[in-house]
Amino acid sequence: MPAKMLEETLNKKVALLLKDNRILEGALVGYDDYMNLVLDDAQEKSQDVNKKLGVVIVRGSNVVRIVPL
Amino acid sequence: MPAKMLEETLNKKVALLLKDNRILEGALVGYDDYMNLVLDDAQEKSQDVNKKLGVVIVRGSNVVRIVPL
Amino acid sequence: MPAKMLEETLNKKVALLLKDNRILEGALVGYDDYMNLVLDDAQEKSQDVNKKLGVVIVRGSNVVRIVPL
Amino acid sequence: MPAKMLEETLNKKVALLLKDNRILEGALVGYDDYMNLVLDDAQEKSQDVNKKLGVVIVRGSNVVRIVPL
Amino acid sequence: MPAKMLEETLNKKVALLLKDNRILEGALVGYDDYMNLVLDDAQEKSQDVNKKLGVVIVRGSNVVRIVPL
Amino acid sequence: MPAKMLEETLNKKVALLLKDNRILEGALVGYDDYMNLVLDDAQEKSQDVNKKLGVVIVRGSNVVRIVPL
Amino acid sequence: MPAKMLEETLNKKVALLLKDNRILEGALVGYDDYMNLVLDDAQEKSQDVNKKLGVVIVRGSNVVRIVPL
Repeated sequence: MPAKMLEETLNKKVALLLKDNRILEGALVGYDDYMNLVLDDAQEKSQDVNKKLGVVIVRGSNVVRIVPL
Repeated sequence: MPAKMLEETLNKKVALLLKDNRILEGALVGYDDYMNLVLDDAQEKSQDVNKKLGVVIVRGSNVVRIVPL
Repeated sequence: MPAKMLEETLNKKVALLLKDNRILEGALVGYDDYMNLVLDDAQEKSQDVNKKLGVVIVRGSNVVRIVPL
Repeated sequence: MPAKMLEETLNKKVALLLKDNRILEGALVGYDDYMNLVLDDAQEKSQDVNKKLGVVIVRGSNVVRIVPL
Repeated sequence: MPAKMLEETLNKKVALLLKDNRILEGALVGYDDYMNLVLDDAQEKSQDVNKKLGVVIVRGSNVVRIVPL
Repeated sequence: MPAKMLEETLNKKVALLLKDNRILEGALVGYDDYMNLVLDDAQEKSQDVNKKLGVVIVRGSNVVRIVPL
Repeated sequence: MPAKMLEETLNKKVALLLKDNRILEGALVGYDDYMNLVLDDAQEKSQDVNKKLGVVIVRGSNVVRIVPL
C-alpha cells in the first residue's frame, strides 16, 4: 500500500525528509521497491539554504518520509 | 503476528516513534512487509512542534514503534 | 531455537531493551522472523519515566534483548 | 564453521560482548543463522553492574563476539 | 524508474553527494542495482578541497543523491 | 576471491581490526560467507590492553579488515 | 559495470577509502559481489601513519570508494 501511494503521487510535488535532515522538494517522477526516488525540479530547502538541483536521484536508504504537497 | 496487528490497526489512529525521536500521529492507512507505512491526517508532535503534514509515507527502516491510540 | 524461546514466551511478561536504551515491559503477544514484536499492556520504563502505552508494535531492528520476567 | 563452533558451545558458559559494550555472561542454550542467541542464567557484567537476568534472547545484530568460558 | 534515470545519465556529468558529505563530480560511466557507481574524470569537491581522482568506484551504500549536471 | 584468501589463511595467525577499533590477534580456524570468524588462541590488543580470550567467535558485521601475519 | 571496472583493475594499484577515513593503498588482487576486497603489498596511509600491512582482506561494508592509481 505504500507502493500504491507512491504510484498515486507520481508527477505530483512532494517534500522529502532525508536522514541527514535535508529537505528536498520536487515532483516525484520515479521510484522503485527500495524507495529509491527520482525528483524533477528539485530544490534543497534546509534552514537558510534554498538550492535548485533540477533532477535528483535519491537512494532509498536515506529517506525518512515523503509528504505529498 | 505483528503484521496481523498492523492489519487490525488499519484506519485507526496511531502514534509512531521514529529513530530520530520524531513522533508522528495519524490514521494508519497503509503498510507493507518492511513496515513502510502510510499515515493520513498526520501531525508531527515533537516537543513544542505540532506540524500538520496530511498524508505521509514513512520508510520502515526509521520506525521504532507503533502505538495504536 | 531463539524462535522456539519466543514461542514459549508468548503471553508472558517480558522486559524489552531497545537500541535507544528505552525499556519496554509488557506481555509478548506476537513476534515474527525479524523479531518484530507486539506487546500488550506495555509500559515504557526508562529512568524516571513510567509511561503506559497499551499495545505496542516494535520493529525488530531496534531490539537488543528480550528478558522473560 | 562459526555455526559449528556455536553448536559445540551449546550448554556451555559464554561471555557475550554487544555493540553497546554491554557484556552478558550465561549458558548458551540456543542460536540461529542470524546469531540470535538465547542465554540461560545470564548476568549483565558491565563495569560496576552485575545484574541477574535469567533467560535472555539477544538479537544477533547486536553481537560483536562470543567467547566460550 | 530510478534505474532508467541512471541509464539516461550514462556518460553525462553528475554531482554525487555521499553520506560523509563528500561531493564527487565526474562522468557517470557505470552503475549497478545497488547503486554502486563508476565515475570517470572525477574530482572531490568538498569545501576548499578540489582533488582530482580520475576513475572512482563508489560503493552504493554511501550514496545520498545523484544530480545530473 | 576474498573467500579463497580466507581459505588459504586457515590455521594461520591473523590480526583482525573491528569497527569499534578493537584489534584481535589469533589463529583463524573458521569463517563463513558473512565473514563470521572463529579465532583460536585469541588476544585483544588495543592500546595498553592485552587480554587473552582463547576461542572467539566474531560476528562478521563488525569486521573491518583481516591481515594474515 | 562497477564489477567490470573492478575486473579491469585486478593486479593494479588502488587507493581505498574506508568509512573510518582510513586509506589503504595496495594492489587489488581479489574482490567479490559484496565488494569484499583483497589487497597485496598494502599500506595504511592516514595522516602521519604509513603502516605496511602486506596482504589485507577488507570487508566490503566498510568501503567508500576505490580509486585505481
